[in-house]
Amino acid sequence: MTRKNAFYAQSGGVTAVINASAAGVIEAAREHSDKIGTVYAGRDGIVGALTEDLIDTSAESAGAIAALKHTPAGAFGSARYKLKGLEENRAQYERLIEVFKAHDIGYFFYNGGGDSADTCLKISQLSEKMGYPIQAIHVPKTMDNDLPHTDCSPGFGSVAKYTAVSIREAGFDLASMCKTSTKVFILEVMGRHAGWTAAAGGLASEADGQDPHVLLFPEIAFDEEKFLAKVDETVKRHGYCTIVASEGVRNADGEFLSDAGSTDAFGHKQLGGMAPTLAELIKNKLGYKYHYAIADYLMRAARHIASQTDVEQAYAVGRAAVEYAVAGKSGIMVSIVRESDEPYEWSIGEAPLDEVANVEKMMPREFISEDGFHITEAARRYLKPLIAGESYPPYADGLPQYARLKNVAVEKKLSEGFEV
Amino acid sequence: MTRKNAFYAQSGGVTAVINASAAGVIEAAREHSDKIGTVYAGRDGIVGALTEDLIDTSAESAGAIAALKHTPAGAFGSARYKLKGLEENRAQYERLIEVFKAHDIGYFFYNGGGDSADTCLKISQLSEKMGYPIQAIHVPKTMDNDLPHTDCSPGFGSVAKYTAVSIREAGFDLASMCKTSTKVFILEVMGRHAGWTAAAGGLASEADGQDPHVLLFPEIAFDEEKFLAKVDETVKRHGYCTIVASEGVRNADGEFLSDAGSTDAFGHKQLGGMAPTLAELIKNKLGYKYHYAIADYLMRAARHIASQTDVEQAYAVGRAAVEYAVAGKSGIMVSIVRESDEPYEWSIGEAPLDEVANVEKMMPREFISEDGFHITEAARRYLKPLIAGESYPPYADGLPQYARLKNVAVEKKLSEGFEV
Repeated sequence: MTRKNAFYAQSGGVTAVINASAAGVIEAAREHSDKIGTVYAGRDGIVGALTEDLIDTSAESAGAIAALKHTPAGAFGSARYKLKGLEENRAQYERLIEVFKAHDIGYFFYNGGGDSADTCLKISQLSEKMGYPIQAIHVPKTMDNDLPHTDCSPGFGSVAKYTAVSIREAGFDLASMCKTSTKVFILEVMGRHAGWTAAAGGLASEADGQDPHVLLFPEIAFDEEKFLAKVDETVKRHGYCTIVASEGVRNADGEFLSDAGSTDAFGHKQLGGMAPTLAELIKNKLGYKYHYAIADYLMRAARHIASQTDVEQAYAVGRAAVEYAVAGKSGIMVSIVRESDEPYEWSIGEAPLDEVANVEKMMPREFISEDGFHITEAARRYLKPLIAGESYPPYADGLPQYARLKNVAVEKKLSEGFEV
Repeated sequence: MTRKNAFYAQSGGVTAVINASAAGVIEAAREHSDKIGTVYAGRDGIVGALTEDLIDTSAESAGAIAALKHTPAGAFGSARYKLKGLEENRAQYERLIEVFKAHDIGYFFYNGGGDSADTCLKISQLSEKMGYPIQAIHVPKTMDNDLPHTDCSPGFGSVAKYTAVSIREAGFDLASMCKTSTKVFILEVMGRHAGWTAAAGGLASEADGQDPHVLLFPEIAFDEEKFLAKVDETVKRHGYCTIVASEGVRNADGEFLSDAGSTDAFGHKQLGGMAPTLAELIKNKLGYKYHYAIADYLMRAARHIASQTDVEQAYAVGRAAVEYAVAGKSGIMVSIVRESDEPYEWSIGEAPLDEVANVEKMMPREFISEDGFHITEAARRYLKPLIAGESYPPYADGLPQYARLKNVAVEKKLSEGFEV
């Protein structure tokens, strides 16, 4: 096996721990300097590969790379840029291979969700056909936890923890004030079409009657009458009601309750506006004073309250991707395998990319209580270890000290540019 | 001086550290058992005094009281309930004195903001007139930081830290994604008519060009044209723009930019809806993709990221209130006196309540940059020590362990009830 350079890129919405995966890839690659030369990172994800805008990670000190483990978001830039099908735009793939060839890149580490798994697979297949084989390994990442064939997705444990901590704190607030003020509080969470994030909020309720009282999942069609009855009954019994609502909740006709209608670069509908919609409904039909919070990016960037489990797994999948690559593997996603719930034990595994690409893993029905408004014991067993442990970043002057890399550009070798 | 019982109540919107003040009051009172008998807490604030619904804090262990130091919100319940003027509703004040008399209460510790200072003053004055003098001491609390005659208000340092940490994290997210996705992010923060909370977000920008790029204060009339030009210029220069917007921002006519029109029990307009208003404006006029978060109660309940300075000050003002009381004082607010900026040194002082009640302290103009969109060095010097230090709560199973008190009711002594 000859020594080749590696390319690493971050894809899609960033998380609190995707940089921990980057650190895993880079640190492991540095240990395999006999097989892996330089790790080039794509500036702004795959866009950097298409435009030959590569970052030389060897210009970063060991300390800077280690600091990525406690730095949220994408240190090299990520992209919402989905490569088209091979038939539609063969030129994109050919350009990628051309850039990889020019920089002697033999390893492709792609850190993303379901769409990125699809890209990773295509590159693996096409490079083979084009006579410049590249070992393509997918490093899983998505706060939505909707990747199949892995126990969980790095990035999820930290938003899960953020959600559970935040709704617990808001619940203490409501409990204090409900006698004369706000009766209903709604926390709107991201998570797209899967209810994993909202489910995690349910962990804050550790005893019967403890809030959050109501969780709304995309997996359960929204039933206005049942919802209002549940909220009303909760306020009457406990004095207040706290709700975690998934941005992707839909009614029985499959329409999103939220209003926002824009579409992102992957063709996904941009969701949002769930909380005010629910709040107005509650005010109009039940007359209760409400407040709501929209967590949005705060939740996926919240490295300050990241889960220790999540940080460790994100780092481990990055390292494992390199180990698999130097062992000669390609066309796989690194996965997390649960060995036991309690004590929580996990190991690293692999899944073939063609089974991962473009599949969304929804919450199983047995994780959702019969009435559809909460989680079951099975869900708790699954979720609990994922938010375990605190992994605090270092602070100075009261603020977390996150890494800002140099991101030195690699000299271009191709004469032609490329329009993205 | 005869031994008397004490009454403690929490008032208005709760904070991440108001319970630390409660712990200060109760622990100090226990040390002065020669002068102070039992500390009774009002269930749901002053409402508990009016309805003779008192909580016996002596039923709580030393450990439970100590745990209040790391527990957000109001452990005994707070209330948005403003006592009317003496002429309008003398019966309320007479009832309070009657309840205090029945339970041999000689000390009144009221933990709140400007409205509560007013109530505290009236009780001090009226009890004197009614021949049952009560030593009334105001324990300052407000996340809005708008109390006069104190360097800062306990509760503010922690929302300030939450805001600065959150917008820094969101900024890292935007920086990663802006090439192909969101260009503008708005964080809407509470803080009523004063811009202190938004100003604190400015601390996250430690070098020229670092985000947040734009802060919107209620103290500066919103100028649509200037705002849009600033956002556009920022996106063009840095690739993205992050904004912290105060809920209380108004246009040149003094109208709130937000839509929500409800009014709370104090007659204050309930604010909210600033972020979507700004986001729509940006989308329509500049065409940039946006995201926004609305922190709402999450910020004031966020004990998990509380400022160590804030926790210490909240605890200290609680203790000091008791010390002032046993020294014979009444009709005062405990205050925080800044001795030096760097190193930050502070001490405890006092302010006469008639100078505190119903006065809102706005951001001084010299804390706001000339263009109105950021903070000055003077503001940084003032704000920086207030967010310093981390004071993490204990965790179990990934979740913060906050105190849940027994809140045992004291037997009623009066035959008549009271409608609130």
